[in-house]
Amino acid sequence: MKLHQMWADYPTIQDELSETLKKMEQVVRLKNKPVETAIKETIHAGGKLLRPAYQLLFAQFGPEQDREKAISLAASIEMLHIATLIHDDIVDEAEVRRGKPNLRSRFGNSVAVYAGDYLFVCCFKLLSEYASSLKSMQLNAKSMEKVLNGELGQMDNRYNYHLSVDEYLENISGKTAELFQLSCFVGAYESGTSERFAKKAGEIGLSIGMAFQIIDDILDYTKTSEAIGKPVLEDIRQGVYSLPLIYALQTEKKDELLSYLKKKAELSQIEAEKVRQIVVEVKGVENAQELAESYTKKALREIHKLPSTQASDTLAALTTLILKRVD
Amino acid sequence: MKLHQMWADYPTIQDELSETLKKMEQVVRLKNKPVETAIKETIHAGGKLLRPAYQLLFAQFGPEQDREKAISLAASIEMLHIATLIHDDIVDEAEVRRGKPNLRSRFGNSVAVYAGDYLFVCCFKLLSEYASSLKSMQLNAKSMEKVLNGELGQMDNRYNYHLSVDEYLENISGKTAELFQLSCFVGAYESGTSERFAKKAGEIGLSIGMAFQIIDDILDYTKTSEAIGKPVLEDIRQGVYSLPLIYALQTEKKDELLSYLKKKAELSQIEAEKVRQIVVEVKGVENAQELAESYTKKALREIHKLPSTQASDTLAALTTLILKRVD
Repeated sequence: MKLHQMWADYPTIQDELSETLKKMEQVVRLKNKPVETAIKETIHAGGKLLRPAYQLLFAQFGPEQDREKAISLAASIEMLHIATLIHDDIVDEAEVRRGKPNLRSRFGNSVAVYAGDYLFVCCFKLLSEYASSLKSMQLNAKSMEKVLNGELGQMDNRYNYHLSVDEYLENISGKTAELFQLSCFVGAYESGTSERFAKKAGEIGLSIGMAFQIIDDILDYTKTSEAIGKPVLEDIRQGVYSLPLIYALQTEKKDELLSYLKKKAELSQIEAEKVRQIVVEVKGVENAQELAESYTKKALREIHKLPSTQASDTLAALTTLILKRVD
Repeated sequence: MKLHQMWADYPTIQDELSETLKKMEQVVRLKNKPVETAIKETIHAGGKLLRPAYQLLFAQFGPEQDREKAISLAASIEMLHIATLIHDDIVDEAEVRRGKPNLRSRFGNSVAVYAGDYLFVCCFKLLSEYASSLKSMQLNAKSMEKVLNGELGQMDNRYNYHLSVDEYLENISGKTAELFQLSCFVGAYESGTSERFAKKAGEIGLSIGMAFQIIDDILDYTKTSEAIGKPVLEDIRQGVYSLPLIYALQTEKKDELLSYLKKKAELSQIEAEKVRQIVVEVKGVENAQELAESYTKKALREIHKLPSTQASDTLAALTTLILKRVD
């Protein structure tokens, strides 16, 4: 049960995240032992646990300091996140997650379908046991709906080279930023802050999530396969066109780019490399970095307005760390 | 929006089921219109709506007669059921559902994964809006966990010709009977009956669900492909060994049966036909029918103890109808 090294500098949150992992492990109880083991291994596969971390940090702002509750709800959001990852990997036909063979490549799509479903149910179970109200459940359900709408929106736009920046932002707002929003909102709300404060926390989470996904998409153009733990430019071949490419398609290189994109899944590694070069050359990456930075700055501005506590210091440091300039 | 003809004799419940379908349709709202359409078509694909029907009937026993609530909760249970069907079809690599090409064969596994997820979320959303308490949510979550445990248990036992009757019953108790249990329990509980009455309703649902699944498994051995809307003996080829076969494997024909079963997916249509003949010959079907009948009788005995109302009359008639002897 090893936590990501980034948490070594934050001993308080490191402890709580260790307990969150333990809680997740406790909840998974299946008669089918191979699948139980596969799910537990996925839980311990070395995710950064950012969503529970944000939730636990915002849980320190309210008057109700119930550690067991905060950790259980943090476990629920991470289980929801892992459920979506497992199902995303089926849809993307991905073989690798965090540098290792993923659940579907080891156990097949069938196990992956039910394993994801089971984690959804675990999330629901923890929420129903620890959330303070039906209203809280409703807000969770609405967030999940937005996540699915984002996933399905992205799927609908595969190989759509007319995708606008706004449409891209709407999709990542659903598929990624919404869970960050929910984490921060639930953390604050369930610790008993005012609804106004919890909504503000949610907005901060949304900005962080937007920046996080844009940076993740930029990495596809700037890092090696080993560094990001999955094949580079896999997205393009699967028709997932992200911000650097969308910006590049707005330049005079559009036609040249389209000549490659129209090959869809047939795009060779050399051609994909050429696409990457063009996108970098016409500043697609640079422009995407600027937009990511504006979301990061917005989040940090709001974090600096929070009451000055250890939690808000950690929020600022963590946000700066994970959203630092990628180059 | 056509309801199954079986409801023509029950105008009250027919009306409510029509509204349940309408409610389900209203809840599905996606930006991805092809998937929205696919989900709506699946909703209207002609399922019998048994789970919402039982829920609506048991909802007539309590003091709180809130039609909107009862219909919304009935919609939530059917959406959960459809979600599991869509995901089951991915796992079974099935092409046909209710005699028509299913969602995955028309739109692919990827759409089917997210479509099922979305229906889970719709179920969660309706529950969080209409359930009366977090306790009710917890009971729903626990039921869903049992369903997944049953699905995964069945998967773990594929091609296991040592499967015992008890293990078979445990698996169908999870994968099928649990949702009938939940339907009846929630119907009663959310209409404000005592918890004792609601639990009794749940037990009746459990017996109905057990009989229902055993009969469904018997149909694989007694009906033509056209009549059940999917290929006959598909289960055997996929290693899903159900009650008639399990009983047959306890007879002197065991070795002969095993010589076929060991061919797994390679079993030809002619060999499958031979398996069927043996199972019938050694009374595997007959013994399974007897067990189904004992569950049916148990359910009817308990239904006859309910307060005598139109709802209990309908419950008895409906249960007799759907669980009538199959031969």
